[in-house]
Amino acid sequence: MEESHVFPPIPAMCQILKKRDLRPHTLVSSAAMEDLSEIDCSNPNCVVIGDATTELSYENLNRAFQMLIAMENPILFSLGKGKYYKDAGELCLDVGCYMKALEYACDIQAEVVGKPSSNFFNAALEDMGVEASETVMIGDDIVNDVGGAQACGMRGVLVRTGKFRPQDEQHSQVTPDGIVDNLAQAVKFIIESKN
Amino acid sequence: MEESHVFPPIPAMCQILKKRDLRPHTLVSSAAMEDLSEIDCSNPNCVVIGDATTELSYENLNRAFQMLIAMENPILFSLGKGKYYKDAGELCLDVGCYMKALEYACDIQAEVVGKPSSNFFNAALEDMGVEASETVMIGDDIVNDVGGAQACGMRGVLVRTGKFRPQDEQHSQVTPDGIVDNLAQAVKFIIESKN
Repeated sequence: MEESHVFPPIPAMCQILKKRDLRPHTLVSSAAMEDLSEIDCSNPNCVVIGDATTELSYENLNRAFQMLIAMENPILFSLGKGKYYKDAGELCLDVGCYMKALEYACDIQAEVVGKPSSNFFNAALEDMGVEASETVMIGDDIVNDVGGAQACGMRGVLVRTGKFRPQDEQHSQVTPDGIVDNLAQAVKFIIESKN
Repeated sequence: MEESHVFPPIPAMCQILKKRDLRPHTLVSSAAMEDLSEIDCSNPNCVVIGDATTELSYENLNRAFQMLIAMENPILFSLGKGKYYKDAGELCLDVGCYMKALEYACDIQAEVVGKPSSNFFNAALEDMGVEASETVMIGDDIVNDVGGAQACGMRGVLVRTGKFRPQDEQHSQVTPDGIVDNLAQAVKFIIESKN
């Protein structure tokens, strides 16, 4: 896959920060940090958290909290709101959990940039020049992939790989348009649904 | 103050674990760990989290999450639900924030043992042999100290020390029976309210 076909939340995040004249204290992965290199992070007036894995230490999370609680109007951005993902065969806490921790600590609501935010899905559709109604989102996250896409008018197909768990098929809020075992089956689903 | 006059949540936690035949995976402070030494922690069927400070690392929190998500009926106990506390002049994230992270990750509701749980306050009252109506709770946590005590029929006095912040005086849900600058003022408040 070419890089131009991947839609990470960072460009959208940069745009928002510049537009609103915000300087972030960041708690993100080192890759995301590089993509934020053009952003002024001095004298922070907001906090951005992402899937920073081991950087999400007690000390770093405390630091992000201390920055927020000291602000007159604390602004927290979260690069997604996933509950968990799968890495090297193990389920790991995703950024959404840390977002919830900071929201509770500071009595605030984070602004989500990335899945399942409609702004984010719509930006990706626009960039690809396609309509939501003709697009199928395939993902292993029942809420953020499937539910997020459906909320934007796309079809959402759940794939039984990655962090998929059997109980996802009976989710209380999201009913996928299709459930498939792998990407090959997903392609078959799309071709068949065109006929 | 004598040790017998302090009411930590651990004895209550031990009682619950024994009564319900639960074996915890623990993520608590080393002091709490000692107090749990009589408890069987083999082959865990629940998770107990407490104010474990630096033990609340990314790895340890992930481990607690993995234990929970692998359980058919995940049971999470939280030793309190405080948002933050003050240590060495700095505000630090309290156990309630990590409880929220795990609740979100696993789609569950934690059972709180400790403040502001009514069971916990009532056990302390019973142990001291006093009635709620003749008791005043003095604390720096507007929700867990003051609100928790009031919900049990005690009076709750907010003290402007520790983690107190000016905005606590205009809390949307809790109105203290009194607000004082320090413990000496609290004693004065109690004596005056008796007359």
